[in-house]
Amino acid sequence: MKQPVAILGASGYTGGELARILANHPHVEVVYASSERFAGKPWNAIYPHLGRAGSLILSAMDADAAADAAQIVFCALPHKTSMSVVPRLLERGCTVIDLSADFRLKSAATYEEWYETPHIAPQLLAEAVYGLPELYREQIRGQKLIACPGCYPTSVIVPLYPLVKAGAIEAEGIIADCKSGVSGAGRSPSQGVMLSELNEGFKAYKVGKHRHTAEMEQALSEAAGRELTVRFTPHLLPQSRGILSTCYVKPIGEGDAEAARELLRQAYADEPFVDILPAGVNPATSDVRGANGVRISVDMDHRTGWMLVISVIDNLVKGSSGQATQNLNLAMGWEETTGLETVALFP
Amino acid sequence: MKQPVAILGASGYTGGELARILANHPHVEVVYASSERFAGKPWNAIYPHLGRAGSLILSAMDADAAADAAQIVFCALPHKTSMSVVPRLLERGCTVIDLSADFRLKSAATYEEWYETPHIAPQLLAEAVYGLPELYREQIRGQKLIACPGCYPTSVIVPLYPLVKAGAIEAEGIIADCKSGVSGAGRSPSQGVMLSELNEGFKAYKVGKHRHTAEMEQALSEAAGRELTVRFTPHLLPQSRGILSTCYVKPIGEGDAEAARELLRQAYADEPFVDILPAGVNPATSDVRGANGVRISVDMDHRTGWMLVISVIDNLVKGSSGQATQNLNLAMGWEETTGLETVALFP
Amino acid sequence: MKQPVAILGASGYTGGELARILANHPHVEVVYASSERFAGKPWNAIYPHLGRAGSLILSAMDADAAADAAQIVFCALPHKTSMSVVPRLLERGCTVIDLSADFRLKSAATYEEWYETPHIAPQLLAEAVYGLPELYREQIRGQKLIACPGCYPTSVIVPLYPLVKAGAIEAEGIIADCKSGVSGAGRSPSQGVMLSELNEGFKAYKVGKHRHTAEMEQALSEAAGRELTVRFTPHLLPQSRGILSTCYVKPIGEGDAEAARELLRQAYADEPFVDILPAGVNPATSDVRGANGVRISVDMDHRTGWMLVISVIDNLVKGSSGQATQNLNLAMGWEETTGLETVALFP
Amino acid sequence: MKQPVAILGASGYTGGELARILANHPHVEVVYASSERFAGKPWNAIYPHLGRAGSLILSAMDADAAADAAQIVFCALPHKTSMSVVPRLLERGCTVIDLSADFRLKSAATYEEWYETPHIAPQLLAEAVYGLPELYREQIRGQKLIACPGCYPTSVIVPLYPLVKAGAIEAEGIIADCKSGVSGAGRSPSQGVMLSELNEGFKAYKVGKHRHTAEMEQALSEAAGRELTVRFTPHLLPQSRGILSTCYVKPIGEGDAEAARELLRQAYADEPFVDILPAGVNPATSDVRGANGVRISVDMDHRTGWMLVISVIDNLVKGSSGQATQNLNLAMGWEETTGLETVALFP
Repeated sequence: MKQPVAILGASGYTGGELARILANHPHVEVVYASSERFAGKPWNAIYPHLGRAGSLILSAMDADAAADAAQIVFCALPHKTSMSVVPRLLERGCTVIDLSADFRLKSAATYEEWYETPHIAPQLLAEAVYGLPELYREQIRGQKLIACPGCYPTSVIVPLYPLVKAGAIEAEGIIADCKSGVSGAGRSPSQGVMLSELNEGFKAYKVGKHRHTAEMEQALSEAAGRELTVRFTPHLLPQSRGILSTCYVKPIGEGDAEAARELLRQAYADEPFVDILPAGVNPATSDVRGANGVRISVDMDHRTGWMLVISVIDNLVKGSSGQATQNLNLAMGWEETTGLETVALFP
Repeated sequence: MKQPVAILGASGYTGGELARILANHPHVEVVYASSERFAGKPWNAIYPHLGRAGSLILSAMDADAAADAAQIVFCALPHKTSMSVVPRLLERGCTVIDLSADFRLKSAATYEEWYETPHIAPQLLAEAVYGLPELYREQIRGQKLIACPGCYPTSVIVPLYPLVKAGAIEAEGIIADCKSGVSGAGRSPSQGVMLSELNEGFKAYKVGKHRHTAEMEQALSEAAGRELTVRFTPHLLPQSRGILSTCYVKPIGEGDAEAARELLRQAYADEPFVDILPAGVNPATSDVRGANGVRISVDMDHRTGWMLVISVIDNLVKGSSGQATQNLNLAMGWEETTGLETVALFP
Repeated sequence: MKQPVAILGASGYTGGELARILANHPHVEVVYASSERFAGKPWNAIYPHLGRAGSLILSAMDADAAADAAQIVFCALPHKTSMSVVPRLLERGCTVIDLSADFRLKSAATYEEWYETPHIAPQLLAEAVYGLPELYREQIRGQKLIACPGCYPTSVIVPLYPLVKAGAIEAEGIIADCKSGVSGAGRSPSQGVMLSELNEGFKAYKVGKHRHTAEMEQALSEAAGRELTVRFTPHLLPQSRGILSTCYVKPIGEGDAEAARELLRQAYADEPFVDILPAGVNPATSDVRGANGVRISVDMDHRTGWMLVISVIDNLVKGSSGQATQNLNLAMGWEETTGLETVALFP
Repeated sequence: MKQPVAILGASGYTGGELARILANHPHVEVVYASSERFAGKPWNAIYPHLGRAGSLILSAMDADAAADAAQIVFCALPHKTSMSVVPRLLERGCTVIDLSADFRLKSAATYEEWYETPHIAPQLLAEAVYGLPELYREQIRGQKLIACPGCYPTSVIVPLYPLVKAGAIEAEGIIADCKSGVSGAGRSPSQGVMLSELNEGFKAYKVGKHRHTAEMEQALSEAAGRELTVRFTPHLLPQSRGILSTCYVKPIGEGDAEAARELLRQAYADEPFVDILPAGVNPATSDVRGANGVRISVDMDHRTGWMLVISVIDNLVKGSSGQATQNLNLAMGWEETTGLETVALFP
């Protein structure tokens, strides 16, 4: 029998992507989905691509109604909204998989600094687990509150964590030059995401101010065993999906690319979704479009002393709704890849 | 136990798409895949998106080797090449699902007229079945040679066949103004498919000369019970996938759009992949990206007397490799939707 | 000495395009530009591509201030807003070049029918000239109120008018299947124009209801000498600029494509911006990107009896701001091509 | 009277772009244009966007015929081909503006190292001037052999040269993370530049091996007064035009962004094409599409110690054919901006 699940925030792209992924998940059925703006309409009225899998009628958000309907709840809500509803869901005994930023940072002060609002449920920060299965798998199993990582942090932490942890690269001066498809900006219309504006208009944005910096620094500091900073620069690509992160790091020692690859290969030897590419092969965002994979290449430039670590993910899959499903599987004790076996869509 | 299948022509887009779809098909396993140019390389060297599902080593094409390996063979070859190898595969007892144009037309003369080459296996034309399950399901079951329809014809025949058959529209003067994503042109590089050329460069092509015209006319003539012609104009969209066909037809009688919709709804009442949209809703190619669906809308313009029938498909799924899989399922007696249940990818 | 000009509605795409074109016009200088939303900011704050040519500070709209500053006024305002301000500008003696729909239709009733609002300055409809220089050049010279045609109508009327006028095609049953870049929808954000939604999401819109139908019918009815209707279907391309219109018409007589081309060549023999393409060549929107050209091809399909007339324009140039500049030149008695000699930008 | 000019290599994108730009240049007329592949055809048969400005018939390349026809010759040829023909053109007394890489590097050994072929006209390297007017204007005036910079180097050298020269940033460890539109790869078809492959497929390429590295290092080493290296990583954008370079540098001293901006403002105070953006504004490639501008922003991240310098250019204008025209103007003693005053095309 399928487990009922609820999705709060069903009209955003991550909500729509959860619908797509969970439609093929054998153990769950979405029985409740909320949208303030489209309550009363069927899901496929706002997401025609869901077709017959989108006949559920959307509800106005009500935590208790969600908890009545389902003991597993995905929160695909904006930050701030999420922390206003998660405590009640936990009280009701739900397993909460939160896609917002609200429970990712361990420090309420850091949250307030980057998100410019006080945290209203700081007591939950310690118990929430950062839902990056490749690093925190054991803590995620059976957990009640899982904070799914941001899309950019996923693309930067997965490739760099083992290298920092092993002392293979310097903890100082890390650069993450990241490029994202525009679906990462969500489905709310704004001038900046219009096709006319972006089609031939590549640009950087939020330079030095993007909130995902804090997440990257939290995870990599943990790996380093001390506080470090990351220079993160996001750019907006004229495409819908995909993140490619070009990371510049300083190797410790002679900087052997193959040794770094081997280190990553061992760290991720049993991972179903992480691939370390051989020398001379660099990933493209289209390699993982619609799939939960992370692809990583390492190059060493001995002329300049810089090592390059390049990664790609699909921002809506491994960067949000796919990773959330991976966390669901872990939390429930199911096979981790359930519902996520699909091959990427290309071209 | 999984049935072994072979794919001839594994390096084109339809071959790559078969790999993607069949990777999630529970009853088959691809054990042989050919590519003249890339023989000896793993499939995922030319299609990185296949990832771990693409470890099969490509072979130079050899019909007997394919038949030795598998009794089900997909031919994703160019026309002319296909008819040179299909007879041998049939002799070897294989079930052949042909994605080329070689066995779609019943008349060798018509083939020669449009394809400008004599047909070298005309004796097979009578026994080949046109693999459009919505029209020819019963003939496809258990068949040994199935000719999968072209992408444009699928998008035109599915919406118009029942209307012509029922005498709801005039058989004369049908216009199909069709727009396709550029993956329909295949993976061979040419100036016309470069991003720089197409990105802001929408255009019509092969005006009045596209070979798919013959297929449309063959099927719709059968529906009409007499010879008719179709004015088909293909255009190339600056996007990868998707066909949208805007068909202009003359209603017989008062031209009631809802009656036409109802006629289509009844014709396709039990179809898992065909949806007739309600009044006021028009389809977009993104509705079916990566999925096997056909979406159809009908509008009537009483001012001008023209009825509009608009359809969308994914040219690589319902327009080729998905439909081929649907035919596989029918030929083998499996559930028709096996491997094709995935929801479209959006955005 | 340069003539001062004012632009009302400087923040929309047509306003921005006027800025681009007029920056290289030797006889005028924009001295006043209005924007409700961005009043007080320099033009290049909202249109960085204007660079040093965009230093003018935007004003809140004030017809008298505009008339005080300039005797030539471009109205790049939404319909309804335009007709509320044009009468005052004319009272003040200005030459008004209106890019809105408000003065294009000769009949206030037709305007009300399609725009669903009463016309508030119907007394001006008779004196306004429809600013399509290729047809109405002599009436435009010295005119005080010029209504620039819509983008779609320009792309349909230019190729079809001479054919209808000469009785070379039937006046009944004309189809205009038109595809436009998304800049035609303006610069106001909405879900439908987001890159994520459109990138692989080609679609038709406003099927049977687009207001530009009325303009096409008005001009072609004049050519025919009697009322006719046009079946016009607009589609939204995943590109920024360009309109390609595929028109289906029934020839009178034997339907000789070369004769139709010759008729068009003679009609437009002295036109600086209209090109009739030779047999076998079809236009692409990229042929005229950023330029004021119209390119037209004619094909005849004797099998079906349909003649195809395909045209391309840049919707923001010949479809609006370029044609407005052409009208300016005529109104002022300058060389008609002034400021419009630039070659299209490709790729 | 207009000066005759010749273009060798008229069928590539830089050749086509020269045609566009020079069509509006008041002092020159293209009288000879060569293309091996398309000799005998009119230019506008391969570049329809040139329209009536492209009626010149292309010739097979012949240096003497070019020199007979014109004393000003643009070489828009591939590297290696260029150095095989330039010596003869100089013997014939021509002013040669070379868009290839053949005369950019001062050292034949460095050329051979990066281009993997011996230089066959090394005697000309000393006399060739590197055609970056903002740095070498005086040497360009009256020159007979001008080597136009590569597109990527232009985008990196212009923003960084003054900072290195002034000792405001460290000469070591400079990173240039560059993203280019695909027109930079030229007009020869290859799988990598197909729309289907790139549309959602952003990627890095030639990591650590791109030949433009040598140019960047040559110019910035000169600025530093000693040899330095640059870590340059090119990426391919799913758009036609534009380069955005994100440069990471270490400030010397306290790292004041405004001081760096001021230094750049002073260095380029009289430059017609260089703009230093104010704090908080970052450039987009669409800001300069079709125009000869360079836009530069500077941000300082005190948390990490990295200074960011971001620049944009149009790779086909300031990155090649526009800069070549700027060099023409300097070489001939004309106003430097002649033919280059057009505003960027947006959207």
